[in-house]
Amino acid sequence: MNQFTFYMPTKVLFGEGQLSHLHEQEFPGKKALIVTSNGQSTKKFGYLERVERELEQAGVSHVLFDQIRPNPTTTNVMVGAKMAKDNGCDFVVALGGGSVMDCSKCIALMVTNPGDIWDYSLSKAGGKKAAEFDAIPIVAITTSAGTGSEVDIASVITNEEAKEKTGIFFPSMFPTLSIVDAYLMVSVPAKLTAYQGMDAFFHASESVINKNEHPMGEMFALKAIELIAANLPLAYKDGNNEEARANMALANTLAAYYMLCTSAHTMEHVMGSSHDELVHGAGLIMIAHEYYDFFAERKAAEEPMIKMAKAMGVTNPISGKDFIKALDELIAVLDCTDLKMSDNGITEEELQSFPQKVHEVLGGDITADPVLLSDDDYLEIFKKSFK
Amino acid sequence: MNQFTFYMPTKVLFGEGQLSHLHEQEFPGKKALIVTSNGQSTKKFGYLERVERELEQAGVSHVLFDQIRPNPTTTNVMVGAKMAKDNGCDFVVALGGGSVMDCSKCIALMVTNPGDIWDYSLSKAGGKKAAEFDAIPIVAITTSAGTGSEVDIASVITNEEAKEKTGIFFPSMFPTLSIVDAYLMVSVPAKLTAYQGMDAFFHASESVINKNEHPMGEMFALKAIELIAANLPLAYKDGNNEEARANMALANTLAAYYMLCTSAHTMEHVMGSSHDELVHGAGLIMIAHEYYDFFAERKAAEEPMIKMAKAMGVTNPISGKDFIKALDELIAVLDCTDLKMSDNGITEEELQSFPQKVHEVLGGDITADPVLLSDDDYLEIFKKSFK
Repeated sequence: MNQFTFYMPTKVLFGEGQLSHLHEQEFPGKKALIVTSNGQSTKKFGYLERVERELEQAGVSHVLFDQIRPNPTTTNVMVGAKMAKDNGCDFVVALGGGSVMDCSKCIALMVTNPGDIWDYSLSKAGGKKAAEFDAIPIVAITTSAGTGSEVDIASVITNEEAKEKTGIFFPSMFPTLSIVDAYLMVSVPAKLTAYQGMDAFFHASESVINKNEHPMGEMFALKAIELIAANLPLAYKDGNNEEARANMALANTLAAYYMLCTSAHTMEHVMGSSHDELVHGAGLIMIAHEYYDFFAERKAAEEPMIKMAKAMGVTNPISGKDFIKALDELIAVLDCTDLKMSDNGITEEELQSFPQKVHEVLGGDITADPVLLSDDDYLEIFKKSFK
Repeated sequence: MNQFTFYMPTKVLFGEGQLSHLHEQEFPGKKALIVTSNGQSTKKFGYLERVERELEQAGVSHVLFDQIRPNPTTTNVMVGAKMAKDNGCDFVVALGGGSVMDCSKCIALMVTNPGDIWDYSLSKAGGKKAAEFDAIPIVAITTSAGTGSEVDIASVITNEEAKEKTGIFFPSMFPTLSIVDAYLMVSVPAKLTAYQGMDAFFHASESVINKNEHPMGEMFALKAIELIAANLPLAYKDGNNEEARANMALANTLAAYYMLCTSAHTMEHVMGSSHDELVHGAGLIMIAHEYYDFFAERKAAEEPMIKMAKAMGVTNPISGKDFIKALDELIAVLDCTDLKMSDNGITEEELQSFPQKVHEVLGGDITADPVLLSDDDYLEIFKKSFK
């Protein structure tokens, strides 16, 4: 057995209706900066008001910062951190999807640390500094089932000036408390439900085929795959299917307890880094068949793929191809078979530049695929995936 | 889906050889009270010396308290706490099995809190006080695969004067760091390997049939059952089978991440509370067939039992009886079919007094069985199990 570590200090409340128990929790501070997106949904569906009420019931005061854009920026981080400091907030409540949770973690970091958030980025233009102080505590309330950001220390932030998008992470950015309440997800539109759900699926499937996988990571990932295969089609067809939403919410977090991503995530980040509108989950779906089939063709991941096929409900799978078939069917049921790179502004010529970028952008561990991919392999997968 | 919480702040290092990485860890203090049993094995097999060396390599000084007996007592706790205070120890390193880890947690609690450990017991003679201060940090290095004490806040302590044995638990008693290294378990004798392994099995199986079970608890428990069914017979037959030992070590901890015990654990504690020599795992084995068959006969837990049978490798199980058969076979392979209560001093007459005691002793949740057991039911199970 490999050596591995399990460390998950975030207390997670799972289940429909858990938001109503927020006020019963021990809070890590007395004044919260509530961070939400610049969109309308948390307001329109009453989630924000409910969070405010829960905090008040617990005697916690709060200030609202509702300016986080999709693909949050360094400006979002620095404005939020200033607002927290100006208002004496001693913890952050993130209410939203991956963008909001990611940005909140960096805001929490910049309340206590000097300088600019990019001083702490490991990217080319980043200062590569270690954080001198712990982030202020973070409470994460996720409204989407996809990123799993509620149980990790990572955040993806865009620096528009430097034209960089990278991950920033420090151990103190683990949320103290997270709420995974499917009632907050029923309002997610069908298309996004599919994209986010498949993002969670790929977090899990990349972990299972990852050559650094271990029994505990596999346990989380296979359970996530089982839940997603059985429930994502239902949640997609009927967003009000509470059981399906609940199982997707759980699957999303399970897939994040061990996220051992491979090249597939990196390849998608290459696609997304120059095409801001491309939704991450959609990009992953576009390359999924060719990426996994590359290994199935070479019988390079037969055992993990057979396990995944089994988790997806395939009876007596015997080869990696059975997983590929189940994956294709899942993508088809979600009406995602015809997702096109070209619809998102990616041109066929551009693909030539992608393999080099795989080595430059943030993403999964490109040394952890079942067989090491060459630049020619990346190009082949991109080209075969292109529509 | 039920609402449930996952909170596991203990950082766990899994895998053979992890003890050698102890010195690389961030320690929660500068001077450790190393707590071990009053037996010889941690010394004889060099584990203690290795732990001391690891601490020294990390610049941590240490004092040894090697007086913990099986079924540790209030005296063990108070003498250990005094020793820690007298020597200025600011954290505890538990090196041993369940008794040592349990006792270490209470020692850590009594370093900071006034009075006697029994002031904090919820038992009849206990003071039922809340702990005023957090325990000092605990590092747990388990040398057995059974109790799972390395990832929970519970400890079972005996008060010889009050003739009570009960659980004491406070949130600050979660170990900060635990090491689950199968290399430290190869020296466990075959019989104990079987008893401890089956204790872990029953932690898991009671969770699966528990009416409060939820998908995440089930995930941990079924994985533990799968690993135990496949590996315990191997570890029993050949204690040097490293892979089997490693899988048992992992299974033991997985079974403890959610320990939702039922009446079976309580019934065993009734047997053990008046028969000190009875090994906990052996007692559980003695009643296992009749306890689980009670529900199988009534088809009261068909779905969970079918899942457990499947996890144990049964092909296409169709009823609870398939689980019973697999359980009987597992017990037989471990040469435990003929374990006798009478060999441990329990008399047939005594059984009459047991049902009442089920309501008095510490144990699992006796309201969480698949069907609520009456005193007549308890007596029937005890009587049918008696040999």
